[in-house]
Parts: sequence; structure tokens; C-alpha cells
Amino acid sequence: MNASDLPPLFAGLAIEPADIDAAAARMAGVAHRTPVRTSRQADERSGGRLFFKCENFQRMGAFKFRGAYNALAQFNPAQRERGVIAFSSGNHAQATALAARLLGMPSVIVMPSDSPAAKLAATREYQQGQRGSEVVLYDRYKEDREAIGRRLAEERGMTLVPPYDHSHVMAGQGTAAAELIDEVGALDKLLVCLGGGGLLSGCAVAAHARVPGIEVIGVEPEAGNDIQQSLAAGRIVRIDTPRTIADGAQTQAAGALTFPVIQRLVRQVVTVSDAQLVSTMRFFAERMKMVVEPTGALAAAALLEGVVPARGQRVGIIVSGGNVDLSRYASLLAAGAG
Amino acid sequence: MNASDLPPLFAGLAIEPADIDAAAARMAGVAHRTPVRTSRQADERSGGRLFFKCENFQRMGAFKFRGAYNALAQFNPAQRERGVIAFSSGNHAQATALAARLLGMPSVIVMPSDSPAAKLAATREYQQGQRGSEVVLYDRYKEDREAIGRRLAEERGMTLVPPYDHSHVMAGQGTAAAELIDEVGALDKLLVCLGGGGLLSGCAVAAHARVPGIEVIGVEPEAGNDIQQSLAAGRIVRIDTPRTIADGAQTQAAGALTFPVIQRLVRQVVTVSDAQLVSTMRFFAERMKMVVEPTGALAAAALLEGVVPARGQRVGIIVSGGNVDLSRYASLLAAGAG
Repeated sequence: MNASDLPPLFAGLAIEPADIDAAAARMAGVAHRTPVRTSRQADERSGGRLFFKCENFQRMGAFKFRGAYNALAQFNPAQRERGVIAFSSGNHAQATALAARLLGMPSVIVMPSDSPAAKLAATREYQQGQRGSEVVLYDRYKEDREAIGRRLAEERGMTLVPPYDHSHVMAGQGTAAAELIDEVGALDKLLVCLGGGGLLSGCAVAAHARVPGIEVIGVEPEAGNDIQQSLAAGRIVRIDTPRTIADGAQTQAAGALTFPVIQRLVRQVVTVSDAQLVSTMRFFAERMKMVVEPTGALAAAALLEGVVPARGQRVGIIVSGGNVDLSRYASLLAAGAG
Repeated sequence: MNASDLPPLFAGLAIEPADIDAAAARMAGVAHRTPVRTSRQADERSGGRLFFKCENFQRMGAFKFRGAYNALAQFNPAQRERGVIAFSSGNHAQATALAARLLGMPSVIVMPSDSPAAKLAATREYQQGQRGSEVVLYDRYKEDREAIGRRLAEERGMTLVPPYDHSHVMAGQGTAAAELIDEVGALDKLLVCLGGGGLLSGCAVAAHARVPGIEVIGVEPEAGNDIQQSLAAGRIVRIDTPRTIADGAQTQAAGALTFPVIQRLVRQVVTVSDAQLVSTMRFFAERMKMVVEPTGALAAAALLEGVVPARGQRVGIIVSGGNVDLSRYASLLAAGAG
């Protein structure tokens, strides 16, 4: 497709629909085509017809595998030889480690020292047997992970793949919405959780390419509504690391590439509280028999807790992941009881 | 099919393969065709290729809906008018209540007074708005549920549908194994949890009809190994109500109809401990992001805990249900941490 043929809707953005189709072809047979589930109780509670895209059943337990694999699969031979470096609050770490191993390259993962133990262990497990691979820890309340990542990348000649602000990552994440809509048909609304905006921007492009006029809604934690603020301000607003149980959405700012996509293709951004996330995690466990991590419950919470109306509508929801320490999960389920 | 055409393998048993095919046709579009999931970690741990049939994603959260619906759908008009009565430690209760509501008939459910609160609440929820429906409680360590059920059935003219020892129930449950094998192809082994033997006997018939010589294995709780004892004795052995976390397998004896099927078509019955069930529930939560009730973990536990070898084999596993009180579930997950 020539640039001149591009619908103006996507002109000038970091990714276009064809990038998502190419990503889908690249990860065919490697990433899971995750199931879409429905729930009568969720429909009754929201008044709509809800379709849950279960990325908690994705490889390594979250959508992040899509973006990481799509990025690493496009490395040139020299890049593959030196390997990849990533900084991540968790799922992008595991995703990069797994994608690197599948593609036979070293990975260095820069992770917060207070990452959930399960995520640290899983990352190291994915690196096992892969030459030159290691986890580097830092304090996320004091140190700048981007600076650490860039320094290590330079020292070791490794290619840095950021968790969201990268066109290959964004395109990879968009395949989740593409699969969802290709399976269930047109939707009135699509709700997507929101940290740095990689998943939201990719899904927004995929959704608008399939359903012109679809209402794409981003959902971020109440404690970290930087993108709501950014949209209001018309520029990227940077906040302190938010204190929320949604550890996958503890980002400080949207990306330079993701924000313009969100500005153009996302109708609104709403927030939900940690209490609403716990209530939604309990709904998933009790009614849908699924383990969903706090961040993974963001989009569903907006519907099930009545933040976004759904009456009479067909609504897609990305359930982004299921990686949560079992002891933490157990205490969240127990804390919300009553 | 005439009786003379029946393979001798099934002759004289309460159900034959055609009964399962008829049950499948009856419940098409009503019961969920549940997903079959796989797990690299489960494969690595067992050495085999495992296929998990996820009946925890079935309507009302367990396979029991299949059997109840298949039985109630065959009521005659007079039976439908008077309604159904069922006694159950939990899932058969919900299954009967839901099937009755879908078919527009009253249901009386006799439940142990110590049933998980979620199961009591769900049963009453399924009965809502359905004339003549109620829950009757009894003490399962002191009273005989069958006697209570039969007395109420007589008094009210309702039809009693037992939880397992009924050919329509057995045939309905067998559709789970039929769907599994029809989806993934031939298996070397099929592991099925075992209380009264309704699921096991139905699945054994479905499996042998599809894969001659398949090794069907029943798994019961260590504390309640009445069927192991019965097979050794060559007759149905009755035990005291076993104290195990697998509340769906707290049966005292096999059924008069299920036992002959088990004797003929089940290669062996093994047991697992409550600690092994907890470990397996944790595996399901952590690695497969699924909520599985203790009884639902029986079959998988036998493989993941090394009770039954699987090396180099294709093995089917029925994950029978996911109905567990969240507070109890949380404490089981936390208790098993280590």
C-alpha cells in the first residue's frame, strides 16, 4: 500500500493496519490464538453482549508476548547475534525473554526489584540455557529504568526493545483486537487497559481498520491517570510512579509514538479504582473460573462496575494477562470477600 | 442399532455409544462445547502430551449440567408438569436447578447443610422465578439423602434424578469425553475423576467407542477409595462419607448401573491425596490461569504428581468443574504456598 492510498485516519501515525496484518502473519503458529469467552452473568450485569479476549491464556500469560515477538523477529542477523535488552515492570520482561529464547538470541532484562516473585522467576526460567542472558534489578521508586536500559544497551551492543513505545511492539499488540473482531464480528465498543499505551494504540488501529466508527475506550487505574490528564492537556503529562495494584499499568507517561494514536483513535479514557479491580478479579474467578491479574481486570472493571455503559451493545474487552503471585492473588480474593 | 449388532464390549451395560450420541444431539446449542487446553509446563512435567477438557467452563461451572439436562429433556409431559427432585453434594444440584428452569419445570433440590455457600446460593439463583422450586437441607453425616429424596419425590409426585446412577445422566456426562476425542483425535489414556462413577462410566463408553483399547483411568480421593475397594472385592463396597476437600467425590459407593461399566471398561482406579489436589489447583491457577475446584483437580493430579505415567503418550484429562467458594479457594491457594 502506498502512503497516498492510506486512509487519512491512519496517516502520520507510527503504525497502520498493514503492520498489524504483517505482525499476525509473523507470529502465526508461535503465539496462541487465544479464546474469546462470553458470560451470561457479565451480560446481565452490564446489559450488553460482552466478548472477552483471553490474553491471560496467551504464552507466558499475557498479551506482551505478541509485541515482543513481533519486534525481535524483525532483528537483522547482527542484532540477533548481540541480543535484546528490555526494561519492564513484569510481563514485557517475560515476553522478551521467551521471544529471545525462541529466536535463539541472548536477552538482558532490567526489572524493578519489587517485581512480583512469580514474574522474576518466570523471566529467569525463560532465559535458562540461553547464552548471555540475565536479569538486572533496579529500584523503581528511585532509579530511571530507561537510563539503565540505554546504558547497558550501549555497553553491550544489544538492541533495546521498549515495552510499548515502539512501532513493532504496538503492531504486535494490535493483533489481539484483530483476532477478536475477526472471530466475533463488528463491535460497538472495545475496551482496553492502558499503561503506556502499546496495547491500546495497536488495538485501536486494528479495530478502526475493521469497524469504522468503533468506540475504542482506554481504561487506566485511578491512581495513575496520566493519559486522561495528557488528553485533557493536549500533550504528554508525566506523573510519579502510581501506587496501584495494577502493576502492569504503573507507567509514568504515554509514549511519543502511542500518544498520537490514542489522541486520534481513542474516544475516551476512563479510570477504575483498586477496589473495583479486586471486585472484578473476584468476578472472573467466581463466575468465569479464570485467574486475571489486576491490570488484566482494568477493561472489564469499567463495564462490570458501571463506569462505561453497555446496554444493548456488543462490546469487546481485552483481558490482558493472568500473571499474579499466588499468595498475593489469594490475599486479594480473600480481602474482597463479604 | 439392534441389540444383536452391539459390540460385545458394551452388551448388558446401562448405556451404549448411541446413547451418548443422542445426548450430544439433545444438548447441542444448550450446553457449552467447552475448550480443550494444553500446557507446555504440564507436558514437560508429565513427559506426555496432555489435553485438558475444561468442564470448569461449562454452564453452571461443571460437567454435571450435561447429565442433568440430558435426563430432564427426556421427561414426559406429566413429569415436566410435576417437576424434578435431586439430591446432591453440590454441582448436580445447580445442574438440575438450571436444566429445570431452561425446560420450564419446578425443581426441589436436597442439599447437605454444609455445602459450599457458593453452591447453595447458585442453586437458589437458578431456581428464581420458577414455580414450586426450593432447596431442602440435610445433615450429610447423619441423614440418608437418598431416603429424604425418595420420600419427597413420593409426597410431591416429582421425578427423582439421582446424581450419577441413572442411564440418562451417565450418557449425558459421556459427551464430555466424546467432544474431547472428536476434537483432538486418538488418545492413549483418558483420566477421569470419580465419585459415584457417572462421569467415568459415560466417558469410558464414549472413549472405547472412539478409540478401541484406550486406557481409561478413574481417579478418586485417597480418603474415599470405595471404588478401588469395590474393584478388588468384585462387588460394590460401601464406605463412610469420606473426609476430603474433594467435596464432589464424597460418595459412599458406586452405583448399581455405573459399577458394571467401570468393571468392564476402566483399566484401573488410582487415588490422590488432598495435598496433591491443592498442589494441582495451584498449578492450574499459576500456569494455566484457571480456577479448578478440588474434585476437578483429581484427574490432573494423578498425572502431574506422578501417580500415573504419561511419558510419550497422548493423554486426555477431564477437568470436571470450577465451583469453589472464593474464601475457601483463597485459603487453599495460600495454604499450599511454599
